Amino acid sequence: MATLSDRLSQVPPSPIRKLVPFAVAAKKQGVHVYHLNIGDPDIKTPNVMIDVLQKWDRNPISYDQSQGNPDFLSALASYYHAIGFSFIEESNIQVTTGGSEAISMALFAACNPGDEVVVFEPFYANYNCYAVVNGVTLVPITTVIDNGFHLPDRKTIEDKITDKTKAFLICNPNNPTGTVYTKEEIEMLVGIAKEKKLFILSDEVYREFVYDGKKQISLLSYLKDMPEQIIVLDSLSKRYSLCGARLGCLVTQNKGVLDGVLHIAQGRLSSGLIDQVMATKLTDVPQSYFDEVLTEYQERRNVLYEGLKSIPGISLPKPEGAFYTIAKLPVEDADDFAKWLLTDFRDNNETVMVAPAAGFFATKGAGKNEVRIAYVLNIPSLKRALELLKNALEAYKGKK
Amino acid sequence: MATLSDRLSQVPPSPIRKLVPFAVAAKKQGVHVYHLNIGDPDIKTPNVMIDVLQKWDRNPISYDQSQGNPDFLSALASYYHAIGFSFIEESNIQVTTGGSEAISMALFAACNPGDEVVVFEPFYANYNCYAVVNGVTLVPITTVIDNGFHLPDRKTIEDKITDKTKAFLICNPNNPTGTVYTKEEIEMLVGIAKEKKLFILSDEVYREFVYDGKKQISLLSYLKDMPEQIIVLDSLSKRYSLCGARLGCLVTQNKGVLDGVLHIAQGRLSSGLIDQVMATKLTDVPQSYFDEVLTEYQERRNVLYEGLKSIPGISLPKPEGAFYTIAKLPVEDADDFAKWLLTDFRDNNETVMVAPAAGFFATKGAGKNEVRIAYVLNIPSLKRALELLKNALEAYKGKK
Repeated sequence: MATLSDRLSQVPPSPIRKLVPFAVAAKKQGVHVYHLNIGDPDIKTPNVMIDVLQKWDRNPISYDQSQGNPDFLSALASYYHAIGFSFIEESNIQVTTGGSEAISMALFAACNPGDEVVVFEPFYANYNCYAVVNGVTLVPITTVIDNGFHLPDRKTIEDKITDKTKAFLICNPNNPTGTVYTKEEIEMLVGIAKEKKLFILSDEVYREFVYDGKKQISLLSYLKDMPEQIIVLDSLSKRYSLCGARLGCLVTQNKGVLDGVLHIAQGRLSSGLIDQVMATKLTDVPQSYFDEVLTEYQERRNVLYEGLKSIPGISLPKPEGAFYTIAKLPVEDADDFAKWLLTDFRDNNETVMVAPAAGFFATKGAGKNEVRIAYVLNIPSLKRALELLKNALEAYKGKK
Repeated sequence: MATLSDRLSQVPPSPIRKLVPFAVAAKKQGVHVYHLNIGDPDIKTPNVMIDVLQKWDRNPISYDQSQGNPDFLSALASYYHAIGFSFIEESNIQVTTGGSEAISMALFAACNPGDEVVVFEPFYANYNCYAVVNGVTLVPITTVIDNGFHLPDRKTIEDKITDKTKAFLICNPNNPTGTVYTKEEIEMLVGIAKEKKLFILSDEVYREFVYDGKKQISLLSYLKDMPEQIIVLDSLSKRYSLCGARLGCLVTQNKGVLDGVLHIAQGRLSSGLIDQVMATKLTDVPQSYFDEVLTEYQERRNVLYEGLKSIPGISLPKPEGAFYTIAKLPVEDADDFAKWLLTDFRDNNETVMVAPAAGFFATKGAGKNEVRIAYVLNIPSLKRALELLKNALEAYKGKK
């Protein structure tokens, strides 16, 4: 019998999705599952985009350009101009099939197999997947719940840099912690990257999801200073509630990166035509859409934070952005608890699904009693989900 | 300055797409370009699919399941049942974002970095891209125009198998040659794979595009015999004229492969929701659609074959399937000729675009005076494109 590659078994299951079969089984029993496990928002996609589908008149559904649909590239450039980066040109942008493809392309471009990328754990779990797929070693620097998962000092970071280090990979605002890095933190990283000649791969998918009147500091602000070393990874999934449209982009002024990833893009021919034509309408989405979404998420954040804090034994920092938080639970093994929620716990024939946090760490054993919670449900559902979590924790304690 | 990975520069440009900038420039000058370079058919997507868009009522556009949309998986299983493989279950299928992702996943699953995959050149050029992306070495066995690019004898093939060989990667019906392998050829490969414990990765994207009343021999016919060693790579792009929908799948009974590639699929979350919901209607496409398409392509094949044969100095075999052919041109450097067609040649303000064949070979220097021609234009356009090609060859000869 032919043998599989060793690396295939090293691709980790998604901690967000690995419990899905148990959720499916629960639903088959007629149980309602509140999903706090995945950042798949209930926010409506803008009507101007849905309209494109309903008025669709192109046939056949043909390939698009490998770099991206020309109108979509132009719309993306307009977006970056509108948020203050008027120097971004279409030629700086590679459209990707989801932010996922941008992550994978950036790791491939920056690293030879065996090279290292410094990440701050807990980090977006799918970085693990793309590290294995691209033969890259993620070197984790642990951030802690007590200071809201902000970055450690410069020395701690520099100590992790070796001859094999090629890049930092950051997510800001952060999934899964909800942390928004300060200007000082970003400038510290920029300073180290400059000195050590490293790339900064900056995942800014949640750029606009920042609360309490704060603003995210985009790495795009440093592009002029370090044009060759910054690669911004972006996605339309959250900004326009287009998770299922699989659209993102990679933005850089490094010509070598752009030329190389275009060849990879040619290999997969093009991103989806329908998704791109639909998303081209992003320039027509009114500001009120974003204002309402931000207000809604800030309220949800407040409900979640107050709700979780009031449950005995739970600790968490106040999330500053994105729509996730990492919470420490009064359990030994959050993986077991999360599975038990789906297989055993029922409250009025309902239960709740959370993502065990261990999968967001590269350090073995870290995050074992933590979960990631996505606050993507409307407020009544979120309140009920919190109530379920509280009741479940009591029942889980009782069963031991 | 941070340095790029060595491997990035090894990803080759697509021979199908690398001349696109010259085509764009020609079009900007108002020149009409006949595209024989890319298999992007003008055949209409079935109306039952376009209807799904026009009646779209789902909002938000949310993630789908990582393995695939459940209804789409069910439709794919029905398709395989209808073509005679009633034992294929949904659990044997991983939906992929285009056939491209299926190729990449299969190479990753079968090979560790540095492992070898035997291919028959000329082969689908994007295999080169995914070989580099996955750190796999393609070992080419050259097939020749004189016997219609059919396989060489068993000994020639076995001689290329080393300790590092993990798989055959075949495309049947073949892109770029139009060859349809005989039962004897397929059984020879199956025999070698069994003896040498190799995977067969069988790209069957053009399964139904077989002319003169012949039938393709699918590797699915050997699944029961070699359930662990066969991975079929498929795509909806050509069958339903859905190139821009980025949908394909990987079919196997090897549980290890399926579990592993599902983890990769989880990393990219899901394939496009809209594309999958639309394509679910594949079960409603009437047989008459396929019959008409096949008749049309067979006619085009005839027009192309007769037309090319009548041009002095061109030689080619009669294509048996798919919608491509490799033709030898009376030029020294087909790359230079293909570029010149776009930059210099004009006939009544029109020109024609072809794909230089060298990019479809792994052996350096092979295919230098050959081009791949896709017959995806309607017959009047195809006739005009052939006329242009004839006139261009005369003019090109004259300019020397």
